[in-house]
Amino acid sequence: MAIGSEDLSLAAAAALDASDPLADLVDRFVVDDPDLIYLDGNSLGRLPRATVERLSAVVQQDWGAGLIRSWDHWIDLPAEVGDRLGAALLGAGPGQTLVADSVTVNLYKLAMAALDLATAADPARRVIVTDDDNFPTDRYVLAAVAARHGGEVRLVPSDPVHGPDPDRLAAALGPDVALVSLSHVAYRSAALVDMAEVTEAVHRVGALTLWDLSHAAGSVVVDLDGTGADLAVGCTYKYLNAGPGAPAYLYVRRSLADRLRSPIPGWFAAADQFAMGPTFSPIAGVGRFAAGTPSILGVTAVDEGVRLLAEAGIGRVRAKGVALTTLLLDLADARLGPLGFEAASPRDPDRRGAHVSLAHPEAREISAALIEVADVVADFRTPDRLRLGPAPLSTRFVDVVHAVDRIAELVGSGRHLTSAAPPVDPPET
Amino acid sequence: MAIGSEDLSLAAAAALDASDPLADLVDRFVVDDPDLIYLDGNSLGRLPRATVERLSAVVQQDWGAGLIRSWDHWIDLPAEVGDRLGAALLGAGPGQTLVADSVTVNLYKLAMAALDLATAADPARRVIVTDDDNFPTDRYVLAAVAARHGGEVRLVPSDPVHGPDPDRLAAALGPDVALVSLSHVAYRSAALVDMAEVTEAVHRVGALTLWDLSHAAGSVVVDLDGTGADLAVGCTYKYLNAGPGAPAYLYVRRSLADRLRSPIPGWFAAADQFAMGPTFSPIAGVGRFAAGTPSILGVTAVDEGVRLLAEAGIGRVRAKGVALTTLLLDLADARLGPLGFEAASPRDPDRRGAHVSLAHPEAREISAALIEVADVVADFRTPDRLRLGPAPLSTRFVDVVHAVDRIAELVGSGRHLTSAAPPVDPPET
Repeated sequence: MAIGSEDLSLAAAAALDASDPLADLVDRFVVDDPDLIYLDGNSLGRLPRATVERLSAVVQQDWGAGLIRSWDHWIDLPAEVGDRLGAALLGAGPGQTLVADSVTVNLYKLAMAALDLATAADPARRVIVTDDDNFPTDRYVLAAVAARHGGEVRLVPSDPVHGPDPDRLAAALGPDVALVSLSHVAYRSAALVDMAEVTEAVHRVGALTLWDLSHAAGSVVVDLDGTGADLAVGCTYKYLNAGPGAPAYLYVRRSLADRLRSPIPGWFAAADQFAMGPTFSPIAGVGRFAAGTPSILGVTAVDEGVRLLAEAGIGRVRAKGVALTTLLLDLADARLGPLGFEAASPRDPDRRGAHVSLAHPEAREISAALIEVADVVADFRTPDRLRLGPAPLSTRFVDVVHAVDRIAELVGSGRHLTSAAPPVDPPET
Repeated sequence: MAIGSEDLSLAAAAALDASDPLADLVDRFVVDDPDLIYLDGNSLGRLPRATVERLSAVVQQDWGAGLIRSWDHWIDLPAEVGDRLGAALLGAGPGQTLVADSVTVNLYKLAMAALDLATAADPARRVIVTDDDNFPTDRYVLAAVAARHGGEVRLVPSDPVHGPDPDRLAAALGPDVALVSLSHVAYRSAALVDMAEVTEAVHRVGALTLWDLSHAAGSVVVDLDGTGADLAVGCTYKYLNAGPGAPAYLYVRRSLADRLRSPIPGWFAAADQFAMGPTFSPIAGVGRFAAGTPSILGVTAVDEGVRLLAEAGIGRVRAKGVALTTLLLDLADARLGPLGFEAASPRDPDRRGAHVSLAHPEAREISAALIEVADVVADFRTPDRLRLGPAPLSTRFVDVVHAVDRIAELVGSGRHLTSAAPPVDPPET
C-alpha cells in the first residue's frame, strides 16, 4: 500500500504526541467513547477524573456527613480557589480573584462599579467602549450599564477574523470614556487582543479596562498584574474543565478594589457577615464583589480544573495550543480548502487563542452532521463558521488529523446535506 | 425505675412517629452519624439519597459522556424544575418560576425591575418598604436598589418574636411606595406574615410585592397565584435539600412579566439566544430574568429536593412542621424554661414557620457546645437566639425529645460555659 499524505500527517502527528510533555494528561480525563473526537473543549471542557472523586467526596462527606459544620472550610473556598486560579492562569497575585456567580453577573457588577466610580468623579465620563463582535452577553450587559448611567456604548468595528481594529479602538478613546471592555480572545475567531497595549492606551485617557477572559484563561498566557489590567471576568466551564454552568470568576486590581462598590451588596460581601447589622459595609478587597451563598459543588469543580492546569503549567499549555491550532490550520488549508473551507482565525499564532474557526457556507449543516454521522464534536457559530477547539490538556495531535480526515470525508461525500441531523446550537460560549 | 416525664415525652413522641404519614421519608436521607440530632435543616438541609445517585449520573453520563450534546436537555432544566417547584411548593402555575443565580442576585434583579417600572410611570414612586428585622441581604440590596432610583427604604418596625407590625406596615404604605418586600417566614423568629392580607393592602396603593420565601418554601403552604403575589425569590439549600449554595429561584406573576426588564440582560434571556444579534430583546415570561449559564449540577439537585417534597405533599409537610414545632415549644417551656430559656417564636402555629427560636443570654456558647459535646446541631443567631429547625422531612418526633434532653443536660451542667468549642456562625440563612 502506498503511503499517502494522510498517513504522512498521521505519522508526523504521532511524533508530536510522542514528544508532547503534556501527553499523559489526556488520560486524566473521563473518555466514554474512544472513537469520539471532541473539539469543543473551548465550549464545555471534558470531565477530569479527579473531579468525579472530589465531587463525590464533597457531596457525601462534606454535605452528607459534615452538614452545616462544613461551612468552617467552605466559607473560604471562593477566595482560596480564586487565588489559585489567579496565580496559575491569570498572572494575578493573591487577594484579587474570586470565584462567584456567572460571567454575566460578574461583568454587570464590575461594569456598574466602574461606571459609578467614573461618573462620581466626572458625570460626563460615561461611555463604555467595546467591539461590535464581542460576545452577546458582554454587549448586552455593557449597553444596559451605560444606559443606566445616562451614557452609551461606543462600538469599535471588529474584523471577523482579526478582531477589534487597533486604530479604530485608539480613535474611540477620549475623556468621555469610563470603561473599555474587550474579550482577550474572541469567542468566534480566537483573535487575541494585545492586553498590555490596550491597557496602556486606555489608562492614557483615564479610563479602566474590563477583560472577558472566558476563551483566554487556561489557553493563553494572561498577565493581569503585569499589564496593569484593572478588572476581569471569565468562565470556568471551557478550558478550566469545571463543568456545565460552574461558577465564574472575577478579578479586581488590588489598588482599585477599595474604591469600588458592588451594585449588589449581598451578605457574603459584608465586613462582619454575622453581625447582620442595619447597614451594609463591604469588606476590603475583591471579596466585596461576592453576593449570595456560593455554589460549593461548583467552586470545588473549579478547584480541580485549576489544579490540573497548574500541574501542566500554562506555558506548556500555551505551547501545545499553538502547535495544535497550527497543525489544524495547515491540514485545513491542504485538505479542506479544496472543499470550500477558508481559515477564519488569525494565522499568526501570537495573535490567536487555542481554537480555530473555518468559514464554509454549509457550516451549520456540517457541524450537525459531524456529530450525527462522523463522531466529531465541533460548534457552529453564525453566520458560517465551524469552530474547532482542540483543548490542549485533553486533545492529542493525532485527534486533529483524524478530525480533518472525517470532515474531508463528510463534506467530500456531500453527506452533510442529506444527513437527517437537526442543526445543533450548544449554549456555551 | 420510675417513669419520669422524660420517658413519658419519649413514649408520646414515639407514638407520633408511629402515626406520621411522612415517617418513611426520614430514611430517604443520608445519615452518617445516627447519634447526631440535626436541627439545622432550615439552614442547610440534609442530603437526599436520590441526589447522590442523580448528581453522579449528571457528572459521569451527562457531562463525562454526553459532553456538549447534553445541552439539548440541560437548556430547559431551569424552567422545568422551576415549574415543578412552583407547582409543588409555591402555588404557582407554570411559566412563572425559574431556577437561577442566588437569592441575593434574584432579589436585586426583581427589585430593580420593579423600581424601573414604577419610576417610569411616576418618578415620585420610589420608596421600598421592608421591615427592620428582615434578613440582612434583603435589607442591603433593597437599600441599594432604592438609592439607585433616588428613593429610599422605609423600615417598618418588626417585633423580634411576631414579625412586622401590621398596623405600622399599613401606615407605611402610600402613593410613593413602589415595592413592599418582606420575608414570608422570618429567618430568626419564624414569624409568618399573612401574604394575602399584605398583598391586598399593597395593591390598594398601587405598589408591588416581592416575597422572600427562603424559610417558607417547603415548610409552609405558599399560594403565590392565589394571593395575587407579584414577585418572589427563595433559596433551595434549606427545606428543599439542594445542597450548599445550590441555585435559588424567582417567581414573576404571568400578567406582570412582560412589563418588566431585568437589569442584567444576559444571553440566556435573549429571545433568540443563538442569533447573537446586535441588540438584546428579552424572551416572553419569567425566562427574561435568566442571566448567564445555569449551574446544571445545582439545578439537578434542586430537582431531586423538589421531587421529594412533592411526593410528601406540602399539606402533610406543613402539618408535621406544626406538630414538631409545637412539641418543641411545649418541651422547651417545661424543661428549658427553668434553665433561663424563653420562647422567641410565635406560639400560634398559624403564625409560625417550621423552626423555633429560643432566647437565652448564653445562646452563642450553648450553640457551640451543643455541636462540640452533645451532638446536636442548631444555630446561634444574634443577639441571644438558639434557632432550632426540625425539618419535617428528615426529623423524627423522638429527635425533638432527645434534643431537648441534651440541651437541658448541657445547660443544667453548665458545661456550655467551660467547653472549649469556639462559637460557630454557619453561613446559611
